[in-house]
Amino acid sequence: MSTVEKYFELVDQSQQQFIETLREIVGIPSVSSDASRRSDVVRMGEWLQARWEAIGAVCKRVDPGKQMLQGQELDLPPVILGQYGNDPSKKTVLVYGHYDVQPALLEDGWETDPFTLVEKEDKLVGRGSTDDKGPVLGWLLCVETHKQAGIELPVNLKFCWEGMEESGSEGLDAVIVAEADKWFKGTDVVCISDNYWLGTKKPCLTHGLRGVSYFHLQVEGPGADLHSGVFGGTVHEPMVDLVHLLAKLVDNKGRIQVPGIYDQVMPVTEEEERTYEGLEFSHSALSSDLKRDIVIHSDERDTLKHRWRFPTLSIHGVEGAFYSPGDKTVIPARVRGKFSLRTVPNMEPEKVAQLVTRYLEDEFAKLNSKNKMTVIETHAGRWWYSSPDHPNFRAGARATEKVYGVKPDLTREGGSIPVTLTFEENLGVNVLLLPMGAADDGAHSINEKIDKRNFIQGIKLLGAYLHEVAETDMTATA
Amino acid sequence: MSTVEKYFELVDQSQQQFIETLREIVGIPSVSSDASRRSDVVRMGEWLQARWEAIGAVCKRVDPGKQMLQGQELDLPPVILGQYGNDPSKKTVLVYGHYDVQPALLEDGWETDPFTLVEKEDKLVGRGSTDDKGPVLGWLLCVETHKQAGIELPVNLKFCWEGMEESGSEGLDAVIVAEADKWFKGTDVVCISDNYWLGTKKPCLTHGLRGVSYFHLQVEGPGADLHSGVFGGTVHEPMVDLVHLLAKLVDNKGRIQVPGIYDQVMPVTEEEERTYEGLEFSHSALSSDLKRDIVIHSDERDTLKHRWRFPTLSIHGVEGAFYSPGDKTVIPARVRGKFSLRTVPNMEPEKVAQLVTRYLEDEFAKLNSKNKMTVIETHAGRWWYSSPDHPNFRAGARATEKVYGVKPDLTREGGSIPVTLTFEENLGVNVLLLPMGAADDGAHSINEKIDKRNFIQGIKLLGAYLHEVAETDMTATA
Repeated sequence: MSTVEKYFELVDQSQQQFIETLREIVGIPSVSSDASRRSDVVRMGEWLQARWEAIGAVCKRVDPGKQMLQGQELDLPPVILGQYGNDPSKKTVLVYGHYDVQPALLEDGWETDPFTLVEKEDKLVGRGSTDDKGPVLGWLLCVETHKQAGIELPVNLKFCWEGMEESGSEGLDAVIVAEADKWFKGTDVVCISDNYWLGTKKPCLTHGLRGVSYFHLQVEGPGADLHSGVFGGTVHEPMVDLVHLLAKLVDNKGRIQVPGIYDQVMPVTEEEERTYEGLEFSHSALSSDLKRDIVIHSDERDTLKHRWRFPTLSIHGVEGAFYSPGDKTVIPARVRGKFSLRTVPNMEPEKVAQLVTRYLEDEFAKLNSKNKMTVIETHAGRWWYSSPDHPNFRAGARATEKVYGVKPDLTREGGSIPVTLTFEENLGVNVLLLPMGAADDGAHSINEKIDKRNFIQGIKLLGAYLHEVAETDMTATA
Repeated sequence: MSTVEKYFELVDQSQQQFIETLREIVGIPSVSSDASRRSDVVRMGEWLQARWEAIGAVCKRVDPGKQMLQGQELDLPPVILGQYGNDPSKKTVLVYGHYDVQPALLEDGWETDPFTLVEKEDKLVGRGSTDDKGPVLGWLLCVETHKQAGIELPVNLKFCWEGMEESGSEGLDAVIVAEADKWFKGTDVVCISDNYWLGTKKPCLTHGLRGVSYFHLQVEGPGADLHSGVFGGTVHEPMVDLVHLLAKLVDNKGRIQVPGIYDQVMPVTEEEERTYEGLEFSHSALSSDLKRDIVIHSDERDTLKHRWRFPTLSIHGVEGAFYSPGDKTVIPARVRGKFSLRTVPNMEPEKVAQLVTRYLEDEFAKLNSKNKMTVIETHAGRWWYSSPDHPNFRAGARATEKVYGVKPDLTREGGSIPVTLTFEENLGVNVLLLPMGAADDGAHSINEKIDKRNFIQGIKLLGAYLHEVAETDMTATA
């Protein structure tokens, strides 16, 4: 029996104990967006630090500062940095995860108390079970199991646990930048387990994320809101200008109308086409999840391409206009349409902002309105793309095959995990996204769960990955 | 000296006393939309009843039922019906007004406490001073002055004071319908003083109001809000369909795009054109009020026509989409665009709803979307138009000339005063709108005021009008 097989066996034997530990930490309601829960968030960080220190990890607690939340000045929860093992002959893997969770209330529609882990058939239901307490605990249980069984961990492990991920990771970037050449020095590769399989059955590795450029389109008219009875039809109404402009941004089949946007998009290669073969993804499952068949494309591959590797534009809402139930005969004085583009290789955020702004200025000029229009870019996060042929990914793929007996799907994601790019850019090393949970886990939703299988096999997967990394030449180019 | 001149003289002598009485009732914060102020609203109604009864009016307090407000079940404020004089040889004039007011807080931007009447130069500043406590008090002071001076009131006066006008006149229509053949029986004409001059210098009579048809345009997509990172560009987004449809309703010069809407509009006659001559109205004053020149039309008459006698369409807002400050990458699942048309002679609300619905259904079909669209008409109030040649208006015009020395402007209004039509339809008599205040009074705004001149001359005007009605044959056709 190889050491990895022995590790697998120990994991299988410890299943119920692992679930009990998950139950313990799901019971700590570490909701980072709720000021009244801040002490629970800190308690969760301290729980992790104590447990890692108990097996000999060297930890460093970083308190990244203050924040204003719900009218209170609060200390940000600590970032827990740690190192387990310091053998210069071994590779060093940095893992990241977050110990805070989304808010959850029974009255939101949960079937059971969100902060009490419940076993339902093959599911472990509770807030944070999959996002991201399950995976964060997975790394700890993996190392604890090695230590207790006397199996040497084949790599040095560094870790970074944050408590603000569900609230914009406030304070984290500065810590990563500051520690890049200090605490994180010597990192060979990074692994993050904080996303999900494409479907519910087949594991995957994730090698791309889209960026996002968020815009406010502001139209200002009169000095104050007007009564539509008196002023309707006699003045340029900001809301009318706004809907005319918003309607010019994208057609209702998702095609962006801003000239030049598609010129920057990397063409689909034949090699890339092949990665779509055999992916676990179907429109019928998607429509069933959505409760209405509103899928634009007829081919599954097109849907995935528009999720992963083509830019898209969504309209989120309007600030400043009437938004309550009922009727109000107001002409809003100043309105802000909110929309964002998801960006992909090789789009440049600066260029995107320039194209969007110029187009809206041109279209507004055509309206010949006396109102004032302003385009404001409020946020621009870059896309991330990594070659799935990098040795770090090959290590992840072999580990997956060992645990699940199948080659993992190679996926990208439509959303953003900004820390991925922060690590890649500041540490200059490859980052692998190695998900533990499945597509239907309901990370930010009610009745969040992780399947028992994903949790237990996931703990094996993280260990297997570390063993594969140890045996892989990370300097070999793809 | 005629009796009217004697009355005028007495009003002039009582100026400061009248202002003190206005101060007393501005001090009662009768805000109908605030549950915590309901007892003040009732107190204000009771104040009026007591004061009218003190001079011999017969009153009837009608309690029109209950309402839910801010989570509480409350008694609606009373409608105070009254009769002063019952001489079969005299004509009977019914006057209406409201004793409730809009909300007002110092922190909204008032320069002084809103519920303390303050004299600033020639202005009387305070919530309700012009809307509608000044005019309501005007009728009372007019009759009190007659009584105290021993001048016989030349007409029988009926009155109807309500306390819910600023909250949709809840309960009032049922009272009017029920009392049409009872308390209101024998009414020859109605007069309402609850609107404003077109400008600030020249008095007017108002003989037309626009109707309003309010619509919700609902687009439903997925069963729940979606993440734009995952679903942007792959599903039919309700918000994208919505902005495309809203943009089809009206161009940004106020031209309604719904086919057939303008077919129902009464053409402008040469006679009507003449009524626009010499009106006190200028674009420069308008733009200055609006703080930005956003006026569509270059000619003042066109602006007034689009305010008074052409239909218009305004877009008020969106329910269900993201409306807060900041950024949120949501695809809203169900959105409702709110828009309304102002309607004019001879548009039929049923026909308007039919044309709007059919047009939106046609446009939605062109989008070829898999979302579901529904058009909901939430409210339809008819326009009101009265010939300014009716003897009731001629009486109002002569009264105005006696007080102000000028022929009044003949105006219409872009908004609605629904009770006007309710009285006309249920009592079958002519209704005159005889405003006391000026265009810049800021009825629903901060620093609401009535000019001393308008208040004092207004009290004369109401009395002069009653004397003119007494001498006018109301059965003569125009």
